[in-house]
Amino acid sequence: MSQPESTVTESSGIASREREFAVLGQRARAAARRLSRTPGPRRDAAILAIAAALEAETDALVAANAKDLTAGEARGLAPALLDRLRLTPARLADMARSLREVAAQPDPVGEVTGLTVRPNGLRVGQMHIPLGVIGIVYEARPNVTTDAAGLCLKSGNAVFLRGGSEAAHSNTALVDLVRRALAACGLPEDAVQTLPSTEREWVLAMLRAEPYIDLCIPRGGEALIRFVVEHARVPVIKHYKGVCHVFVDRSADLKKALDICYNGKVQRPGVCNALETLLVHEAIAPEFLPLLAAHLAPAGVELRGCEGTRALLPGIRAATEDDWSAEYLDLILAVRVVPDLDAAISHIETYGSDHTESIVSEDYSAVQRFLNEVQSAVVLANASTRFADGGQLGLGAEIGISTTRLHSYGPMGAKDLTTRKFIVYGNGQIRS
Amino acid sequence: MSQPESTVTESSGIASREREFAVLGQRARAAARRLSRTPGPRRDAAILAIAAALEAETDALVAANAKDLTAGEARGLAPALLDRLRLTPARLADMARSLREVAAQPDPVGEVTGLTVRPNGLRVGQMHIPLGVIGIVYEARPNVTTDAAGLCLKSGNAVFLRGGSEAAHSNTALVDLVRRALAACGLPEDAVQTLPSTEREWVLAMLRAEPYIDLCIPRGGEALIRFVVEHARVPVIKHYKGVCHVFVDRSADLKKALDICYNGKVQRPGVCNALETLLVHEAIAPEFLPLLAAHLAPAGVELRGCEGTRALLPGIRAATEDDWSAEYLDLILAVRVVPDLDAAISHIETYGSDHTESIVSEDYSAVQRFLNEVQSAVVLANASTRFADGGQLGLGAEIGISTTRLHSYGPMGAKDLTTRKFIVYGNGQIRS
Repeated sequence: MSQPESTVTESSGIASREREFAVLGQRARAAARRLSRTPGPRRDAAILAIAAALEAETDALVAANAKDLTAGEARGLAPALLDRLRLTPARLADMARSLREVAAQPDPVGEVTGLTVRPNGLRVGQMHIPLGVIGIVYEARPNVTTDAAGLCLKSGNAVFLRGGSEAAHSNTALVDLVRRALAACGLPEDAVQTLPSTEREWVLAMLRAEPYIDLCIPRGGEALIRFVVEHARVPVIKHYKGVCHVFVDRSADLKKALDICYNGKVQRPGVCNALETLLVHEAIAPEFLPLLAAHLAPAGVELRGCEGTRALLPGIRAATEDDWSAEYLDLILAVRVVPDLDAAISHIETYGSDHTESIVSEDYSAVQRFLNEVQSAVVLANASTRFADGGQLGLGAEIGISTTRLHSYGPMGAKDLTTRKFIVYGNGQIRS
Repeated sequence: MSQPESTVTESSGIASREREFAVLGQRARAAARRLSRTPGPRRDAAILAIAAALEAETDALVAANAKDLTAGEARGLAPALLDRLRLTPARLADMARSLREVAAQPDPVGEVTGLTVRPNGLRVGQMHIPLGVIGIVYEARPNVTTDAAGLCLKSGNAVFLRGGSEAAHSNTALVDLVRRALAACGLPEDAVQTLPSTEREWVLAMLRAEPYIDLCIPRGGEALIRFVVEHARVPVIKHYKGVCHVFVDRSADLKKALDICYNGKVQRPGVCNALETLLVHEAIAPEFLPLLAAHLAPAGVELRGCEGTRALLPGIRAATEDDWSAEYLDLILAVRVVPDLDAAISHIETYGSDHTESIVSEDYSAVQRFLNEVQSAVVLANASTRFADGGQLGLGAEIGISTTRLHSYGPMGAKDLTTRKFIVYGNGQIRS
């Protein structure tokens, strides 16, 4: 209300984009209907055709990507961002391999579960069907373009792909390739669409298009995700961050505990399933913490501890309240000594992000309680938090990860892009 | 923006209610945590205690309800609304019976599905857990109060119950009874809460309370549901209306077809799974439609037809474009003659509400295509649309019905109030 004029201008700009988006949305709906009736092997054939085209057109794709890289360098993008943006022959081959893995998965559409007979003879089951039309909003990684297209085709969904403006040339070339492969396989090109430009109003129009979008999945940093959540009228599945915990119980096998902590923190610190806070039972802390500090030191991990931790490791920095909810994405580990399992669970409930937690313990009852009572999306016993990943958990490729509980919770594969309708086989039954 | 002052006043009123609601929300979260750790038999015992109290306190509940009825009569509420509002000893006994049926169902919480072994030895499964805190927004029917409380307890969720102001005395008495039963069973009273008043700002505060509400389910007329959808920041599962179709194929058993049409239209015309539009294959229409008209006439059903229908039934009114998407909730039936199965499916896709459709056919391939290709929430063959109901489909009681595809699609039982977390049994595995 403080800027009424600009608000009005923006609103009418969006309203016009919403009308234009409706045309694209209708095409997506028609394509989704055709896809929902296309047998799995024909959808798989299209996924394999995309994989083959990635390899056949490597030179052209690398050339299109070079334009984005040049523009990115000119704009002063950070080296890490430029690296995420870069397509090489090896990365294109990886993208093709991912698609072939998706194609090889069982068809997530059509399975009927729980078919049972009612007392009146009705046979009632639930059949997996596609959600319809998915919107993916992502940032610099061009591999998301073909990964998401492959998973949406696998699950019989049409998709709008809206990548970052810094990858515009790469994504245009990739989507063009995908659409040609669809057409060559006799499937509707409009099963995979991009927005006509990367301008903000187009994204907003898509996020508001309730009749045309069944689900939006934002993939990227927290700022992107918050933008999508704030502006979407369509359902959104997302996670903001991963503050993952390991609890080393009094009965832990210390060798396993050291390996699991090292792997969680050091193997790939910049990802959402990396270990961020370590909780240690006070009965084992005097023995375990010095071993841990020695084990992590060569990797350059900085420890920040509670008072109990610092009593055992006097040199380390004191953890503040902010450290308990920090997603460092770096070689920093917060460490807290807790009196028992209840305190560990309570700490996770208070500071956790519902992402991934692991207990290291040889105590049957402690493991059972941890697995049952911790309500995060992935709860592990005696394994690294780094396994919280669709591929590692057996879903095949991953379309995203959810830390909110509706529809899906945790890593999401092709089957999470389906819903279940009731099917009923009758023989003339009426209700009395 | 046309009424800036009232907007400001309303906004600050809501902001203050949002702060107050946060206190209630924290209590609900704490109760939900305790419930999620409460074994099924103890939750069932509380549901049975509520059932017993409904019978033991019948006189007091009828007296509280009488205040709502008196106030409703004074306000001139319609007789149908007063009837929905009325509690009698027989209706209270029905509510108790529903609760006992819910208690007798298997525990929807804790089941682990798909436990498989990964190549590295990790054992990965998915465990059903409660969603957390549910908000139910409903209208005059006080039975929703105990039905919803029972289903939420069954599924380990805490719940906010916000009934209509016309049922305020009844709902206050019922929720007081429920909370006393919870306390007597050693469960947290705050597992079931109402809002402090029925004023609009409290509902809005709840609908915006993302940290405290995991799911809102509106139950009532389309205006209520649209209000909830428009104002909610929390996820909403809903359906607006049911425009249910029967398609009588050329190969239909005409006796079954007549029974199914009569049952769908006449048995209870005012409900969402009643039949609204009949589609008839042109090859069978000359034989079937005169029989149908004669069969429905004694029940006083008005037919509105396409040109093909009126050529066979000359006396009936012409259907307009609006008739094809009408939810009459009355003894009116729209009838259209279609050239084939494809035209029937296409009509349903164009005008349907994704609720419930049935084919009457003895043709194997036509039935298969209809069950596979129609993507409504409930698709039946040779059975009445009236079976689209949680109880009839075997879910036990019904918490609501969804015609949007995310999370659940169709009638929803206690299991639809759960999600699935990944549980992983390891033996020291780390990721390489």
